Amino acid sequence: MRARPSMSRAERAQMAMMLEVCAYPKPGNVDRCHDYSDTRLEHFLASTIFARPAFDAAERTGGRVGSLIREAVMLTNNHSGGNTHFGAFILLFPLILGGDIEGARRIVAGTDVADAIEFYAAFGLTEVRMGKSDDLDVNDPTSVAAIRERGMTLADIMAYSANRDMVAREWTNGFALTRRCADLLHEHGPGRQAIVAAFLDLLATEPDTFIAKKHGDTVAEQTMRCAAGVLRGEHDLAAFDAECVRDGINPGSIADITIAGLYVALGEGWQWDS
Amino acid sequence: MRARPSMSRAERAQMAMMLEVCAYPKPGNVDRCHDYSDTRLEHFLASTIFARPAFDAAERTGGRVGSLIREAVMLTNNHSGGNTHFGAFILLFPLILGGDIEGARRIVAGTDVADAIEFYAAFGLTEVRMGKSDDLDVNDPTSVAAIRERGMTLADIMAYSANRDMVAREWTNGFALTRRCADLLHEHGPGRQAIVAAFLDLLATEPDTFIAKKHGDTVAEQTMRCAAGVLRGEHDLAAFDAECVRDGINPGSIADITIAGLYVALGEGWQWDS
Repeated sequence: MRARPSMSRAERAQMAMMLEVCAYPKPGNVDRCHDYSDTRLEHFLASTIFARPAFDAAERTGGRVGSLIREAVMLTNNHSGGNTHFGAFILLFPLILGGDIEGARRIVAGTDVADAIEFYAAFGLTEVRMGKSDDLDVNDPTSVAAIRERGMTLADIMAYSANRDMVAREWTNGFALTRRCADLLHEHGPGRQAIVAAFLDLLATEPDTFIAKKHGDTVAEQTMRCAAGVLRGEHDLAAFDAECVRDGINPGSIADITIAGLYVALGEGWQWDS
Repeated sequence: MRARPSMSRAERAQMAMMLEVCAYPKPGNVDRCHDYSDTRLEHFLASTIFARPAFDAAERTGGRVGSLIREAVMLTNNHSGGNTHFGAFILLFPLILGGDIEGARRIVAGTDVADAIEFYAAFGLTEVRMGKSDDLDVNDPTSVAAIRERGMTLADIMAYSANRDMVAREWTNGFALTRRCADLLHEHGPGRQAIVAAFLDLLATEPDTFIAKKHGDTVAEQTMRCAAGVLRGEHDLAAFDAECVRDGINPGSIADITIAGLYVALGEGWQWDS
């Protein structure tokens, strides 16, 4: 093996996306061994490839987080697999722009109204629903007017969604679960099995808000308890995975946070290749 | 689904590499369901990500095929999985520089001694053995002197290796198997199962020269006959795959040609996503 040249931030983001989707078994999510009929492994990997110019732009020329998220969504909206990485982009762009979690917090604090409006435009391109909000509907053109009128920054929008969305919540709590995921990766050691272990640790302690939106809070909490049971050796991991896939229970938000955690851990020297 | 923006040539090359390695079952090769202990799915996908700057350079600024192959090998030599795409790069760079097969033939015809020397430098970075050549050993510094003295171009080097190496042979026969693979993809129709079908068609009609170098001509021919038997329904595909993996019989050169065929077919409108 040759000396490893350091990855660019853009490459680190792509590696995080690739490693997350390949890691298996990840209960309920697309992984190396599972597809959903409308969203398959190849869709996630295509999105990983097509996002590159937006990551490069963030690394090389900076730019605003709102327009970068919009650019990434546009670049990756070119297949039938639906939106695969919207949540991951929300976490990755502050990290790429800021370099690390400390820097990402500064990026979040510096967002403005224009970022919020760009973000809403990105949001409108996806099929994602971020939590029902009575008076800020992305499909409603008056929302943009409301954002302007109230002077809401993108950080304000995330705070508004934080209660119902754990990805948005990362913006309000200083990337707390992203940090925890990176720490878990270091604890579990090098190589791809650490990704599955860190994912399960998060799943066993946090109700996934993507599941909650799709199936309700009760199912999200049941899934969390079942993951904890797997970790205690009371349930079989493969059976839990099969049940989740059968019922369409996919912890998509914890997957997004795992991508962010991988990005951070790779930057801190965690070795994927061992 | 949104309108698909057209892929850049660089993205098309990356998509070809990603789609090829994910397609399964591909008897004997790394695929979605099989790793070798030292070379895993993630190594192929990492190489797909890290090659991007060399593909971008080829597309945007042209450049010489020898130095581009060397650049791609350097960029992708950053993990422990060994060289995963050396053969693919030999086929992809003329195709990216030339745009299509017709253009790739012109690129091949225009190679010079400097390309040959750069290629030997790239070769020295890999663990690939391209066929025993008595007097042109990449580990022998006098080889470069010999290339200069004889005025050998990179096309001459490929002609020299063509008898034992089906990737080099593509340079001498106008990319004949690349063309056949693209035609097979069109015939088998859209979607990832066409990749497996085209791969098997090639495996059933061509002895893989990577197998021949590792295990001898007899094993390469047996593998070809066995693949033909699978196509006639006389052998079971999964059992054939398991036997190949067990014995380390991996048709790596046909995989390289499949990547080139995918690149061409994607450029001709073949749909991966259906």
